[in-house]
Amino acid sequence: MATIKDVAKEAGVSVATVSRVINNSPKASAVSIEAVKQAMAKLGYRPNANARALVSQSTQTVGVLVGDVSDPFFGTLVKAADKVAHTHGKHLLVCNGYHHAEQEKAAIELLINSRCESLIIHSKALSDQELIQYANEVKGMVLINRHIPELADRCISLDNHKGSYLATEFLIRHGHTKIAHIASSHDIEDAEERIEGYRAAMRDNGLEPSSNCIEYGEPDSEGGEQATRNLLTKSVDFTAVVAYNDYMAVGALSVFEENGVQVPQQVSMVGFDDGMLAKYVHPKLTTIRYPIELMAEKATTLALMLAKGEKPEVESNRFSPTIVRRMSVEKR
Amino acid sequence: MATIKDVAKEAGVSVATVSRVINNSPKASAVSIEAVKQAMAKLGYRPNANARALVSQSTQTVGVLVGDVSDPFFGTLVKAADKVAHTHGKHLLVCNGYHHAEQEKAAIELLINSRCESLIIHSKALSDQELIQYANEVKGMVLINRHIPELADRCISLDNHKGSYLATEFLIRHGHTKIAHIASSHDIEDAEERIEGYRAAMRDNGLEPSSNCIEYGEPDSEGGEQATRNLLTKSVDFTAVVAYNDYMAVGALSVFEENGVQVPQQVSMVGFDDGMLAKYVHPKLTTIRYPIELMAEKATTLALMLAKGEKPEVESNRFSPTIVRRMSVEKR
Repeated sequence: MATIKDVAKEAGVSVATVSRVINNSPKASAVSIEAVKQAMAKLGYRPNANARALVSQSTQTVGVLVGDVSDPFFGTLVKAADKVAHTHGKHLLVCNGYHHAEQEKAAIELLINSRCESLIIHSKALSDQELIQYANEVKGMVLINRHIPELADRCISLDNHKGSYLATEFLIRHGHTKIAHIASSHDIEDAEERIEGYRAAMRDNGLEPSSNCIEYGEPDSEGGEQATRNLLTKSVDFTAVVAYNDYMAVGALSVFEENGVQVPQQVSMVGFDDGMLAKYVHPKLTTIRYPIELMAEKATTLALMLAKGEKPEVESNRFSPTIVRRMSVEKR
Repeated sequence: MATIKDVAKEAGVSVATVSRVINNSPKASAVSIEAVKQAMAKLGYRPNANARALVSQSTQTVGVLVGDVSDPFFGTLVKAADKVAHTHGKHLLVCNGYHHAEQEKAAIELLINSRCESLIIHSKALSDQELIQYANEVKGMVLINRHIPELADRCISLDNHKGSYLATEFLIRHGHTKIAHIASSHDIEDAEERIEGYRAAMRDNGLEPSSNCIEYGEPDSEGGEQATRNLLTKSVDFTAVVAYNDYMAVGALSVFEENGVQVPQQVSMVGFDDGMLAKYVHPKLTTIRYPIELMAEKATTLALMLAKGEKPEVESNRFSPTIVRRMSVEKR
């Protein structure tokens, strides 16, 4: 591959001049621009993004850290961020962190070292303190699906507590009093907040959930199957289930089907996320809508503004979930 | 942010020396290494991946172009590539091309300009000639889900023809003779090959599909709904459907449900992909398995080898689909 030195030699100018032409410096003369362009074309020289970035100290790239891009939830996040970045002429550098501290750290380091000026970080494994340090270093860094008080105006988060409160209250309004919760076994704030929301709705309606009514599993369909089997095995008495997310709800649906438990006739079910699965399972799933698309758009816009040193208008960065009514809940 | 000049000044050495320390050059003395490291720590200087890449002419990054990462099919591809890259200490740079020529081109340019030495390219909109040019430029570039004869040993592809042939034959073996095909309206080779596979299986079994039996739509659930409504509206006589992919099959299922057509009692259905939807819809979908995970692993391993100038063993890069039997097909 031709180097910048080859181009300089071919064009009969200095390397510095070639660099000025590549970077559209106003100091480059029309004659040298022409000579360099001809030399570049002749040698098939490709202006190097690294060299450009070194000079301008900025790249065309927005860095995004997600848990796992093969999960459609994160896919939707990435796509929404990409759309906003694209309208600003930027591209995305996407890394997976798998909710694992070492991998989240390596990914953020890679993004920072690659001079991404804007970062959208979905981190569940790193401490507040670690993230605050990174945020101090990169002024265009925004956190998504996380709330850190010291970084409140750079955190785009969802009121998880309210989400499962809504789900539980919706079931109570449909006459259910024996409501089980299939919770995530992951040690992340979302899981904790959703359990608390469920408990609060029960208490506010004069119902006391026994700890028996909460089962834990991985936040995927297998985890939902496992937790549901546990509920059935322990003969827990319930007529409705609030699931941590749609995947767990869908796992529960298949265990109920296997065991001849009819949904919604015998057991009602509410999920969380409203991803692509919810409207295709049987029965169509009543669920809590997680507005990840809106949140990712906002996070990206904010990250791009912050990177340019612009100050965003003060507005709420905390999003509210809503309920989407389909076919999996019936009056008791 | 501290620059390399600040570090040089603080350490009392030249910028070139700092650069040598950062790049682990054997020419750096122990004394200067110590001085530079202390200066870097004091100033919070972060060695710049761009600066490193400039010197070594290589990055830690594998570039991946996919259609749209929010489609779980591509999410799975990216995750499999990430896994292989990770075992080699590399990270992924992921871009979306949306099967749109300009965007695919911009994305590949970005990846090449970012000095990704390995590229995994899922391109549907660029011509063979354009892709051959890129491949000539980047020796570590591999194409996935595409077959270009001139680049045969750098293309990882699926036998799409065989896939829909299998699906159609499976229905014929179950006594069906009136089989409709819901095809993709996208002008890509996959769509064409799958129609041809369907036609070939019909002909090989003495059945002549009328053009009436093929309906086109966007390759998503809405497109599947649309195409299925067209079949019903035109009173096409069929007892089974071969769908372009699972999304279209799922769209068809919901139209059949709305219209009181029972699957599989009245109409049998075979999908294509075996993504996450297939086992959660009702009835569980009999489908053709697209081994995208295996293919992405192979593509990544190949791209990393080619980038290092290693020659892979000669073996087949053409993968075969298989049928996954679930609940959506019944004997006629």
